[in-house]
Amino acid sequence: MHQARHDVSRTEFQMERFILFSDGVFAICITLLVIEIKVPNREELNIFSDAGLWEYLSKHALIFLGFLISFGIIGHYWTVHHRIFGYGKGYTSGLIWLNLGFLFSVVLLPFSSGLLAEYASDTHMYLPYGIYAANICLTGLMNCWLWLYVSSPRRNLLTHTISAARIQLGLYRSLVVPLIFVLAFLISFLLPLASRFIPILIPVILHWGMKGLERKADLKDKDARSEKEVYAS
Amino acid sequence: MHQARHDVSRTEFQMERFILFSDGVFAICITLLVIEIKVPNREELNIFSDAGLWEYLSKHALIFLGFLISFGIIGHYWTVHHRIFGYGKGYTSGLIWLNLGFLFSVVLLPFSSGLLAEYASDTHMYLPYGIYAANICLTGLMNCWLWLYVSSPRRNLLTHTISAARIQLGLYRSLVVPLIFVLAFLISFLLPLASRFIPILIPVILHWGMKGLERKADLKDKDARSEKEVYAS
Amino acid sequence: MHQARHDVSRTEFQMERFILFSDGVFAICITLLVIEIKVPNREELNIFSDAGLWEYLSKHALIFLGFLISFGIIGHYWTVHHRIFGYGKGYTSGLIWLNLGFLFSVVLLPFSSGLLAEYASDTHMYLPYGIYAANICLTGLMNCWLWLYVSSPRRNLLTHTISAARIQLGLYRSLVVPLIFVLAFLISFLLPLASRFIPILIPVILHWGMKGLERKADLKDKDARSEKEVYAS
Amino acid sequence: MHQARHDVSRTEFQMERFILFSDGVFAICITLLVIEIKVPNREELNIFSDAGLWEYLSKHALIFLGFLISFGIIGHYWTVHHRIFGYGKGYTSGLIWLNLGFLFSVVLLPFSSGLLAEYASDTHMYLPYGIYAANICLTGLMNCWLWLYVSSPRRNLLTHTISAARIQLGLYRSLVVPLIFVLAFLISFLLPLASRFIPILIPVILHWGMKGLERKADLKDKDARSEKEVYAS
Repeated sequence: MHQARHDVSRTEFQMERFILFSDGVFAICITLLVIEIKVPNREELNIFSDAGLWEYLSKHALIFLGFLISFGIIGHYWTVHHRIFGYGKGYTSGLIWLNLGFLFSVVLLPFSSGLLAEYASDTHMYLPYGIYAANICLTGLMNCWLWLYVSSPRRNLLTHTISAARIQLGLYRSLVVPLIFVLAFLISFLLPLASRFIPILIPVILHWGMKGLERKADLKDKDARSEKEVYAS
Repeated sequence: MHQARHDVSRTEFQMERFILFSDGVFAICITLLVIEIKVPNREELNIFSDAGLWEYLSKHALIFLGFLISFGIIGHYWTVHHRIFGYGKGYTSGLIWLNLGFLFSVVLLPFSSGLLAEYASDTHMYLPYGIYAANICLTGLMNCWLWLYVSSPRRNLLTHTISAARIQLGLYRSLVVPLIFVLAFLISFLLPLASRFIPILIPVILHWGMKGLERKADLKDKDARSEKEVYAS
Repeated sequence: MHQARHDVSRTEFQMERFILFSDGVFAICITLLVIEIKVPNREELNIFSDAGLWEYLSKHALIFLGFLISFGIIGHYWTVHHRIFGYGKGYTSGLIWLNLGFLFSVVLLPFSSGLLAEYASDTHMYLPYGIYAANICLTGLMNCWLWLYVSSPRRNLLTHTISAARIQLGLYRSLVVPLIFVLAFLISFLLPLASRFIPILIPVILHWGMKGLERKADLKDKDARSEKEVYAS
Repeated sequence: MHQARHDVSRTEFQMERFILFSDGVFAICITLLVIEIKVPNREELNIFSDAGLWEYLSKHALIFLGFLISFGIIGHYWTVHHRIFGYGKGYTSGLIWLNLGFLFSVVLLPFSSGLLAEYASDTHMYLPYGIYAANICLTGLMNCWLWLYVSSPRRNLLTHTISAARIQLGLYRSLVVPLIFVLAFLISFLLPLASRFIPILIPVILHWGMKGLERKADLKDKDARSEKEVYAS
C-alpha cells in the first residue's frame, strides 16, 4: 500500500478527496448529457412557428426518453458508488485505478447516449443501441469489480465486517442493469421501439425484486454483530 | 433506511458527499448557461466591424436578459437547497432519488434556456417560453416536494424541530417562482415582450413579500425553543 | 441572518459548502476557456499538411495569448476569493447573493474571451476588447464589493479583527486588474496590438507594487495583536 | 507566507479547498475529453445504416485509442497530485500559482487531444502529435517542479520528513511520461502508426520499472523513522 507512506493525519482527507473527485466526474457526466439534446436551429431547420417546433420536438421524443434513461442510469451508479464507499475506510493504489476505470466507462456514457440520440429515428439500425448497451454493460461490470475489490475481507478496506449475504446482494444489484440491457438489445431485433422502454423495468427490479435478498443480508449482518458482541463479552 | 447499514463514523461524510454532488451539478448547470450565448461567428454572419457586431448584439439583447434570469433562477434554487440542507442531519435512499429528480429538472434548464434564446426574436411563438416556464415549474414543484420530505417531522431528518410556520414558509417560498412563471406565460399571449420582464418581480416578492411570514416563523421557532427549555429545566 | 435558524453544528459545513460551490464554478469556467480554442477543422479549412496547420496556428497565435491571460485572470480571482474567505467564519444571505453576482461576472468570462478570440485578427475592431475589458472590470468591482462586505467590522464575519491597512490593501489589490484593463483598452485605440500585452503587467504590479502596502498591513496587524494581548493580560 | 495572516482554525480548510479546486479542474478535463469524440452526424455524413456507421467508427478507431491514452494520462497525473498532496500540510502563495501553472497545462490537454484526434488519419503529419507530446511534456515538467517545490525540506510544507530517496523516486516518476512521449514522437517519423502505441509502455514502467527505487525509498524512510525514535527516546 502506497498510502502507508502518508501521515495518518492525512488518510481521511485523502480518502474523501478520492471520492469527491469521482463525484466531480459523475456530476459533469450527468450534466453533459443535456448537451446532446441539441436546441433545434431555427434557420437551419426552417422552424419559425410553434407548429414547426412542436413537430420537430415530437419527432425527436425518443431523444428525451433516452436522456431520461441515461440520467437515471448515471444517477443509479452514483447512488451505488455512494453506497459502496459508505462502507469504505481505506484505499489502495489498485483501488484508485480500478475506480478510474469505472469512471472511464461513465465518461463514455454521454458519447454513447449522444450516438443513440442521433440515430434514434433510424429504428432499423442496431449498432447505436448495441454500443450504448455495451457501454452500460461495461459500467455495470466495472461497478461489480469495484464492489468485489472493496468488500473483499482480505483487503481490510471496510469500516466493519459485512456478511457474505450483503456482498452477494451488492453483486446481484450491480448485475441487474447490464442484464436488462443485454435483454433489451436482443429484443430490439424483434421489437425495435418497444425494447427502448424495457430499461424502465430496472427501478422496479432494484426496488422490489431485491427485498428478499436485502432482508437476508440485514439478518446476517445483525447475527454477525450479536456474535461479535458475544465474543467481546 | 439503507444508511443504517453503514458505520456511524461515515454518516456525516456520506451526507456531505450527497450535498456536494448536488452542488457539482448546480455549478455545472449555472456555468453551462453561458455556452448557450453563442459567440457570433464572424465569417458566417459577415461581421467585420464594430457596427456590425453591435447590431448583432443589440438584436440579441433578449438572450442576455434570458441568461441573467436563468442564472438568477438556478442561483436561487441553489440558495434554497443550501438552506434546506442546513437543517438536515440525515438522509434516506428515497431522499437521494428525490434529490436526483430535482437535479434532473435543474439539468434541463440550460436546454430550455437555450431554446428560449434561439427563438427569442420570434415573439409570435409561445412554445419556447411555454417549455421554459414548464421546466421552471417542474423545478419549483420538485423543490417543494424536497422541502416537504426533509422537513416532515415523522422522518426525523432534521437537526432540530422546526415550527409548522417555518415549514409553511418554505412551502410558499418554493411556489413563488413557478407561480410567477405561469403568470408570465399567460401574460405573454397579450404582451409578448413585457412578459419577459415579469420574472424580475421574483426577488422583490421573495425578499419583501415574505417578511411577515418570516417574522412569524422566527417567533414560533423561538417559542418552541423556550418551551423546550422549560421542559428541560 | 437566516443562518441563525440553522443548528450551530451545521454552520461550518454550510460555510464550506458555499465556498466549494464557488470553487466548482471557478473550476468549470477556467476549464471552459479551452473550449473557445477551436480545433481547426481539417476539411472545412483544407488543412492536410503540417505547413497548413502551422500557418493556421501561427495566424491565430493571439487566441493563445488571450487564453493565457483569461486563465491567469480567473486564476487570480480564485486566489483572491481563496484569500478573502480564509478570513471568513460566517455568512449572510446577502453575502450569498453578492457572491453569486461575483460568480455571474466570472461565468461570463469564457463568453467574452471567446468573443475576443473570434475577432482577434480584426485589430481595427474595438468592441470585442471593450466588452472583454468591461467584463473584467465588472469582475474586479464585484470582487472589491465582496471584500468590503466580508471585511466590514460591523458585520462580524471574520475569524479575527484585521487592521484598516489590510482592508485597504485588499481594496487596492482588487482594483489593479480593472484599472490595467481600462488602460489597455484606451491604449488599444493607438496601439491595437501592443495593448494586448499590457495585462502582462498585472502580476508584476500585484507582486512587487504591493510590497510596501503589505508590509504596512502586516505591521498594523501585529500591533493590533500585541495590543490585544496587552489588554488580555 | 500570506497564509500566516489567516487564523489557524482556517488553515486546514484553506488547504483542502486548494486541493479540491484542483480536483474540480481535473474532473472537468478528464470528462471534456469525451466531447472531442464527435458523434457522427447522420445527415452530414450520409450514415443511414449499421454498415455505414461501423465503417465510420472503425476508420476513426485511432481517435478512441487517443481518448483512452489521454484519459489514462490525466488520470495518472491526478493520482500523482493525490499522492504529492498526501504528504502536504501547508501551502504558500507561490505553491498556489505553481499549481495553477500545472493545471494550465492539464486544461490544454483536451485541446491537444482534440487536435490529435482531428488529424489522426493524416499519418504523414507530425505537428499534431508534436503539439500533443509537447503539452504532455509541459504537464510532466510542471508536475516535477510541483513535487520539488512541495518536498523541499527548507519550505517545511510536509507532514513529516521524507528521505532523499523518496524525493528522487517522485522526480523519476514524474519524468517517465514526458520521456516516453519524446521517444514516441521521434519514433513517429519512422513508424507513424506503431508510435501511437508506445505510451502503453507507461503503466508498465511506472508499475514494474520503479519497484527497486520504491523499495529503496521505503527502506530509507523506515531508517529515518527508527533514527528519530532513537533520538526521541
